Amino acid sequence: MSNDKGYVEPGKSFERDTNYIEDRILADGSQGWPVEADRYRLVVARACPWANRATIVRRLLGLEQAFSMGICGPTHDQRSWTFDLDPGGRDPVLGYERLQEAFFARDPDYPRGITVPAMVDLPTKAVVTNDFAQMTLDFSTEWTAFHRDGAPDLYPEHLRDEMDEVMKRVYTEINNGVYRCGFAGDQDSYAKAYDRLFTALDWVSERLGSRRYLMGDTITEADVRLFTTLARFDAVYHGHFKCNRTKLTEMPVLWGYARDLFQTPGFGDTTDFPQIKRHYYVVHKDINPTQVVPVGPDTSVWLTPHHREELGGSPFGDGTPPGPVAAGEEVPESEGAGGSTSY
Amino acid sequence: MSNDKGYVEPGKSFERDTNYIEDRILADGSQGWPVEADRYRLVVARACPWANRATIVRRLLGLEQAFSMGICGPTHDQRSWTFDLDPGGRDPVLGYERLQEAFFARDPDYPRGITVPAMVDLPTKAVVTNDFAQMTLDFSTEWTAFHRDGAPDLYPEHLRDEMDEVMKRVYTEINNGVYRCGFAGDQDSYAKAYDRLFTALDWVSERLGSRRYLMGDTITEADVRLFTTLARFDAVYHGHFKCNRTKLTEMPVLWGYARDLFQTPGFGDTTDFPQIKRHYYVVHKDINPTQVVPVGPDTSVWLTPHHREELGGSPFGDGTPPGPVAAGEEVPESEGAGGSTSY
Repeated sequence: MSNDKGYVEPGKSFERDTNYIEDRILADGSQGWPVEADRYRLVVARACPWANRATIVRRLLGLEQAFSMGICGPTHDQRSWTFDLDPGGRDPVLGYERLQEAFFARDPDYPRGITVPAMVDLPTKAVVTNDFAQMTLDFSTEWTAFHRDGAPDLYPEHLRDEMDEVMKRVYTEINNGVYRCGFAGDQDSYAKAYDRLFTALDWVSERLGSRRYLMGDTITEADVRLFTTLARFDAVYHGHFKCNRTKLTEMPVLWGYARDLFQTPGFGDTTDFPQIKRHYYVVHKDINPTQVVPVGPDTSVWLTPHHREELGGSPFGDGTPPGPVAAGEEVPESEGAGGSTSY
Repeated sequence: MSNDKGYVEPGKSFERDTNYIEDRILADGSQGWPVEADRYRLVVARACPWANRATIVRRLLGLEQAFSMGICGPTHDQRSWTFDLDPGGRDPVLGYERLQEAFFARDPDYPRGITVPAMVDLPTKAVVTNDFAQMTLDFSTEWTAFHRDGAPDLYPEHLRDEMDEVMKRVYTEINNGVYRCGFAGDQDSYAKAYDRLFTALDWVSERLGSRRYLMGDTITEADVRLFTTLARFDAVYHGHFKCNRTKLTEMPVLWGYARDLFQTPGFGDTTDFPQIKRHYYVVHKDINPTQVVPVGPDTSVWLTPHHREELGGSPFGDGTPPGPVAAGEEVPESEGAGGSTSY
């Protein structure tokens, strides 16, 4: 995501703007955006946890064959994410320099933040939706015709009621909870946010003490959502957002769980630590005026044994792991957890 | 210490102003400031690592009987440390609201930073010296007539050549090295500072792997100097100054060593974590504009077993530990490592 103004409002707690373009791409095309191969482009930034959800789910389900992906650079200005990683600074498919152009193609007066992930309609080069929460669920439930063989069911019908509750708490207390700490405008808002965050981390930690994944024996969307925050915890949230009761590496259950996922295809291979650090420390100039990016922490620890397989379960249930990352979409080896990975 | 301007100079590495008032209080009085009971007042702030050296050494040597101590609050403005912890906001002995007044009593045009620790002459209420490095050595070598029975020799003659070398490297690379990271004005200065710091931490860690204290079997001034930086490492330097390769708690030798000292009378009982955090996060507004102070980390871990006694040695050699902290000088229990201490 992004924000088109400063991040901290002095004296206030952080409130996320949750107005998105809420159109949906549906199998029955009833909203005018039918599920269709090669019609849409997913635009993400590696750094962004909300976009990272989409890159993980797309890969777990094998949706690379259904829609392509454009990748914005880790930093952006007040106006927009940009395609500065691409040759000539333009997305090779859309031809845009700034993601903003795709929002303006949809609405020339688009008034809100230019956020990733966004699904862009190729015929009109306009954003269809940037509603990150619905987007990945639709990948699971609407794009089934394009799922790879062996794709996992990330949103199983019989679990949805419980999953929705778990994911809601993960969102309000953890995914958004770290931002509430970091962008608190006064000591009191921060202290309350800190308590809420660690209360929730203790809750998932307790839940994961006896089960391998949040919903049981196999990976679901709920795990994807928790993972993207955990992956950024020590690299960014611990210091930059003052979520510093402990590092993730000091929470044994969550650290084992996070590494288990990281070492599963789809998770670590879509995680880019240097881009993550660069994004937060450079973009949030109001809480890091020097824009200096920390050198640490060492990320090679993500590849150490986690022993979570002792809890049983199987990440993909009856399915299979995804194959290698699509050509051109690899996270550079020097930007992942370093050295050779052992998937 | 303190600084009378911003801390970060964009594009530049951090250079400490090391001009101090370098008068010395000597046993022979040859500089006009004789060692004499009840003539001077040591002014400190709990938060400041350079002042913390003086509070530790004064207590280890039993110099409470020779000179009293005034304690400034953890925060200060551009001009001066202040006595805001005292009733009415004035030091009860000097009658000053601001330490600056003692510097101006010495030199009405005093042009440099108002720093702690400072030794103040009571008859004139003027600063004699704020040269922190010489000050504690003089406590050891010039104030011997007032040392308590059983006081340790913190600066043994036969070790001085080696000690001076060790302390020089500890100062340039570690004590000042953390500031060089935190106040770096660009990415390159920071990255170089980070490398220097952790190279030096690896060096002391190696040195302390086989010996209990920096100079061998007993505590010396060198340990005092290393300790005051280690005590602030996880609470402040790891996040605020981006010294984040690892936390102190993740460096096994140094973490054992730091806890060993912390649990020795004179060290933990002069360490005030809330004041330390408040100082850095509130005063350095140019690197922490919100001035929000982190809630973490949990400091009760400082009281866990360190097992360093297995290396042999004895903190006070042939001497004895100091008795209880002088009345009125206690760090509030809630501000130390929490709960009951087990010295």
